[in-house]
Amino acid sequence: MTLDKITLEDQIMTESAKRAGALLTINLDAIVANWRLLNAKVAPASRCAAVVKADAYGLGSAPVTSALYAAGCRRFVVATLDEGLFLRPSLADAEIFILSGPFAGCERDFVAADLTPVLNSPEQIARWQATAHQSGRPLPSVLHVDTGMSRLGLNLRETQVLAEDKRTLTAIQPILLMSHLACADIASHPLNHQQLSAFQAARAHFPGLPGSLAASSGIFLGPDWHADWCRPGAALYGLRPTMEGPNPLHPVVRLDCRIIQVRDIDAGESVGYGATHRASRPGKLATVAAGYADGLFRTLGNRGYGHLGKHRVPLVGRVSMDLIIFDVTDLPEGLAAPGATINLIGGGASVDDFGQAAGTIGYEVLTALGRRYHRHYLGGHAQ
Amino acid sequence: MTLDKITLEDQIMTESAKRAGALLTINLDAIVANWRLLNAKVAPASRCAAVVKADAYGLGSAPVTSALYAAGCRRFVVATLDEGLFLRPSLADAEIFILSGPFAGCERDFVAADLTPVLNSPEQIARWQATAHQSGRPLPSVLHVDTGMSRLGLNLRETQVLAEDKRTLTAIQPILLMSHLACADIASHPLNHQQLSAFQAARAHFPGLPGSLAASSGIFLGPDWHADWCRPGAALYGLRPTMEGPNPLHPVVRLDCRIIQVRDIDAGESVGYGATHRASRPGKLATVAAGYADGLFRTLGNRGYGHLGKHRVPLVGRVSMDLIIFDVTDLPEGLAAPGATINLIGGGASVDDFGQAAGTIGYEVLTALGRRYHRHYLGGHAQ
Repeated sequence: MTLDKITLEDQIMTESAKRAGALLTINLDAIVANWRLLNAKVAPASRCAAVVKADAYGLGSAPVTSALYAAGCRRFVVATLDEGLFLRPSLADAEIFILSGPFAGCERDFVAADLTPVLNSPEQIARWQATAHQSGRPLPSVLHVDTGMSRLGLNLRETQVLAEDKRTLTAIQPILLMSHLACADIASHPLNHQQLSAFQAARAHFPGLPGSLAASSGIFLGPDWHADWCRPGAALYGLRPTMEGPNPLHPVVRLDCRIIQVRDIDAGESVGYGATHRASRPGKLATVAAGYADGLFRTLGNRGYGHLGKHRVPLVGRVSMDLIIFDVTDLPEGLAAPGATINLIGGGASVDDFGQAAGTIGYEVLTALGRRYHRHYLGGHAQ
Repeated sequence: MTLDKITLEDQIMTESAKRAGALLTINLDAIVANWRLLNAKVAPASRCAAVVKADAYGLGSAPVTSALYAAGCRRFVVATLDEGLFLRPSLADAEIFILSGPFAGCERDFVAADLTPVLNSPEQIARWQATAHQSGRPLPSVLHVDTGMSRLGLNLRETQVLAEDKRTLTAIQPILLMSHLACADIASHPLNHQQLSAFQAARAHFPGLPGSLAASSGIFLGPDWHADWCRPGAALYGLRPTMEGPNPLHPVVRLDCRIIQVRDIDAGESVGYGATHRASRPGKLATVAAGYADGLFRTLGNRGYGHLGKHRVPLVGRVSMDLIIFDVTDLPEGLAAPGATINLIGGGASVDDFGQAAGTIGYEVLTALGRRYHRHYLGGHAQ
C-alpha cells in the first residue's frame, strides 16, 4: 500500500480516527525502503546508521526504530539522553549514540543503559574518562571534531592534544570519529571540500578509527564524503536531500485535515483574525480542524494551500490555533463538505513543498507535527 | 515563589531535570491569579470560563485545569472531542465545551462523557437534534453565530431560521450563544463594533439566552463586549491581550536552556548550517541543548536572543533541530560555562517578546513548546 493509494476509508478505521480533526499517515515501509536505498548508495565502502532524534523527526521514534530494527539496522543516533533511555528497552542489541554527550552528573545513566555518548569537548572527555576510571574499565565513545559548523566538537588544537594523550584514549575508547557538514545540501558550496579536508586531517591523528562525516545531504555529495558510516535522518523520512534534481526518496508522510463546516461568503466579507483576507467575489469557504497548535505554521497564512482530490485550494486568512480556512469556491459542487478532508501533505504537495510555502524547511515541518493528529502507521513489519 | 526568584538550583531537583537539555517552568499560581484578575475585571455582570484547548496552550491541560478547578473554575473550553474526553475524569462536576462541535458519528461520545458541543452549522445542529431525539431527551449545546470571522458559526440567515424553529431549539437546548472577535487585540479596529452590533442582533432572536463574545483581548475592549461569559485563554497564560499599555497579567512561563559547550571562534569563521553567520572578531560561542524540534522556531536564526543573568546574548547562525548557538564573547569571564543555562523566556524577554523576535505571536510560541523539556510546575494548590 503506498501513500497515494490510500483513501479516507482506509484511514477512518478506528474510533480514535473518527474523533480526530486530522489524520497523519506515516509509511514505515517507505522509511525502511529509504534506509535500504541509502545503504545501497554508499555500499560497499560505507554503511548507514539511522538518525531517530527528535522523536524520529516527529514521526514517532518507537514505531520508526522498531521498523528499522526489523530491517536490520543496529546503529541508531539520538540527540539526548532521555531519547536514548526511551529507546533502549526495544533495541536490545543495537548501538545507540547520544549526540549531546553526557551532561555533568548523568554519566552513570549512560553506562547503566549501555548508551554511547558523543564526546564534544575536552570537558565532556574529562568527565567520561573519570567515569571509565570509576568503572574500572574503558568506556566506548564517539569523538566529535568540528570542521566548520562551530557548534559542537573539538577544534583542531584540542584534537591534536587528545591524539597524543594515549591514557585518555584508552579510557574513552573511541569507536568512531565524526564531524558534521554545514552546507551539504548545496553541492557547490566551498565549505563541503574544506570540511572534507579538515576531517581527513583529523582522521590522520587516529589511524584505524572508523569515520563518519555525511548525514542525509552529505551522502549525495559523493563517495569522498561517505567515510565508514553515514548518518541519514531527513532522507529516511523522505525529505529532499539536495537542491538539484528529482528527490530520489520515497515519500513517507500524508496529512489530511477534516472539514468542519462549509460556508458561503459575500464579496467584501473579511476572513479570520486581523481580517487579513477579504473576498473579492461571492464564494465558499471550508474550515478544517487543524491549526498552528498542530504545527501548521502561522507563516502559511494567505500563502499555504491544500488539495481536495486533484484540486488545489488556497489557504485564506490567518492560520488560527485550531482551525484553517480554505477557499473552495472553484471546486465542483458537493466536493467540499463536512467530513471530507483537505490534504496538506502527501497528496499534491510534499513535505518540502509545504515547508517552502511556510518559509521554512521540511525538517521543521516534520518536527512540528502536532500531538492531536490521529496517527496511522502503514507497514513496518520485517519484509 | 515567583518566576524571577527561582534559580537553576530550584529547578534541578530531580534526575529528570538533570538529564534534560532545557527546563520549562510553568507557574500554576500565576495562571490562577490571572483567571482571578480577569474575573474581577468583568464582574459583576460577567464571569470567566477557562480556555484550555491545545493542551492548555502547550502548558499541560491536566495540571492547568486541576489548578483552575481548585480555584473554583467550573466551565472549561477545549477545541476537540479528544481534549474533552481527556479532561472529563478530573473535572467531575464542571462543564466542558467542545469548540469544533460533534463530527459525524461521534455524537454519542459527547453524550456519554457529558461534553457540551458548540454547534457551528445547520448540519451539526441537525445531527445533534437527531441525537437528542434518539436519547429521548433534550441535549444541551452552545450555539455559535458568526459575526465577522467567516470561520465557524451560523450566518445571519441561518440564525433567523433557527430562532423560529422551536422544535429544534427544544431538542438542542441552547445554554449559551457565542461568537468570536477577529480583531479584538486592536482596540480601534472598526470590526470590533460591527461584530458587537451583529452579536446583539443575534441575541435579540434568543431572549433570555446568556451570551459570550469576548476572549482574552475582547475583555479589554470594555464592558459592552463582556456579555454574560468571557472566554480567556491567552491571558490566563500571561500573554499580552492588547497592543497598547503595559501587560496587566502575571508571567507564567520560564524557559532555560543548558549550555553543552563553550568554544572559541576566530575572526572569519562561519557558524551553523548554511554558514549564515561569520565572526567579525575573535570570540566565544555557547551551544545550548534545544532547537526547532523543541519549538524554537527557525525564524529566530540570527535574530533571536537569550539572557545569561542580566546579560543579553545574541543568537547566531541558524537554529538547528536540537541546538542553538549564542555569541557570549562580551560576557564576564566564566559566566558562560557547560551546565549553566541561557534563558530564552521569562528572564528578560516575555513570551510575547520571544514571539516578536521569531516573527510570530506568543500564542504560537506557547503551543509549539516541545516535549523534550523538563517541565517543572510551581504552585497549583488551592489557596
